[in-house]
Amino acid sequence: MQTFKITLAYDGTDFVGWQRQAAGVSIQGLLEDALRDLDERDVTVMSAGRTDAGVHALGQVAAFSIERPLAANTVVRALNARLPPTVRVLAAEEVPSSFRARGDARAKTYQYRFWNGDVVSPFERRYVWHVPGPLDVEAMRTAAQLLEGMHDFAAFQTAGSDVRTTEREIFVSEIRHPQSEMITYEICGTGFLRHMVRAIAGSLVEVGRRHRPAEWMADVLASRDRGQAGPTAPASGLFLVSVTYSVVQSRFTPKER
Amino acid sequence: MQTFKITLAYDGTDFVGWQRQAAGVSIQGLLEDALRDLDERDVTVMSAGRTDAGVHALGQVAAFSIERPLAANTVVRALNARLPPTVRVLAAEEVPSSFRARGDARAKTYQYRFWNGDVVSPFERRYVWHVPGPLDVEAMRTAAQLLEGMHDFAAFQTAGSDVRTTEREIFVSEIRHPQSEMITYEICGTGFLRHMVRAIAGSLVEVGRRHRPAEWMADVLASRDRGQAGPTAPASGLFLVSVTYSVVQSRFTPKER
Repeated sequence: MQTFKITLAYDGTDFVGWQRQAAGVSIQGLLEDALRDLDERDVTVMSAGRTDAGVHALGQVAAFSIERPLAANTVVRALNARLPPTVRVLAAEEVPSSFRARGDARAKTYQYRFWNGDVVSPFERRYVWHVPGPLDVEAMRTAAQLLEGMHDFAAFQTAGSDVRTTEREIFVSEIRHPQSEMITYEICGTGFLRHMVRAIAGSLVEVGRRHRPAEWMADVLASRDRGQAGPTAPASGLFLVSVTYSVVQSRFTPKER
Repeated sequence: MQTFKITLAYDGTDFVGWQRQAAGVSIQGLLEDALRDLDERDVTVMSAGRTDAGVHALGQVAAFSIERPLAANTVVRALNARLPPTVRVLAAEEVPSSFRARGDARAKTYQYRFWNGDVVSPFERRYVWHVPGPLDVEAMRTAAQLLEGMHDFAAFQTAGSDVRTTEREIFVSEIRHPQSEMITYEICGTGFLRHMVRAIAGSLVEVGRRHRPAEWMADVLASRDRGQAGPTAPASGLFLVSVTYSVVQSRFTPKER
């Protein structure tokens, strides 16, 4: 048995999300179907995080074990040959069988993209939330920074989640304004609650529209009440950018075969 | 009657091209259908250039005349409300009725995008030509520059075109390498022959793959023979970026209404 860690990009528009569902096409389902074809047995694929329906990934990480002896670059080619072009394996590396895509992740980075122009570019329409009208970008920047550090994010969690603690450490929470019509929000932290980034994005727009002052973000955090935060922003604007692991994984040397 | 000049962006993937065809959906057809609905009469829309099936536009220009008195920003909103999200009117301005989208164009800029990685990003797959393997980018750059100036581009024209002369002046012909996996080619000139940019892109890849030296580009030009140039590159990588007009147009003041 060999265990592989793979890095994946996908356009989430047409999928029901990472997780296999009773109906609809999931990323996990596509990968498990491809691996069943490749390894001639049922293979379970675990990811660093379950992206929801419509959420995109630039660098999702997943792991699985297979019996057929394959080099890492063959795994990349064999999976891509069996996947639709909207899901691509960017890299594969052999890791110890103890590797856990979710449990071993040290940090994850998400990006949320807001389109602030009157007219959405045909090339961006699947990858943004359209927020027309004046936005106070400086206030959004200030509000975003208030989330950095160790906080209880219960106010930004969709009800019904099953987690031990709602405390998370956020290393980076930053608004950027790379082009006149595009505003992006980047957040990097130890972990994320269900719909957390989208609830933060919805709250940042409340501040941008001056419905709330920037400091309101701290009040929302302190309330621990989902009813206090802004609406959940649409999935189309959200990208899982990358997942960071301890360097220990990359020191692993696969056995000679 | 008012004449409007509009600037358009479209994702060409699912269209038969600019021009109305017997079968399939065209950009011209969509615009003319939208204008018939808006003006309650048949309206002809002329563009600066007929993009082929699958070719994209960031800044196509088109013009038409309508009887219904409308402000330019209303034209933008009314057309976008009647067009699919893959075609967007970015701007509209009133121009003299003598304005000709094609005849008055002083220059056009196209971009061709090559994806040089092993795996094509799901977000780029509709907007590039996948050219994996080593490419000599410096040789491509040198070959591209040989096309600047006034030349006879007959060698880069698809047979059967009906044009008076095959001489064109090229102001900019430049290879750029903005990211490791992305190589772009930008060309700006007075006008372009049928499939000219795609024939040049196909020839640049011949040079990049070292099947031909950079100087071969000058030999191809001199031959005036389409058989000497490289293959026609796929439509997916081609973008009409912008069309430039004399400043005279923008000095026009619409009548007070």
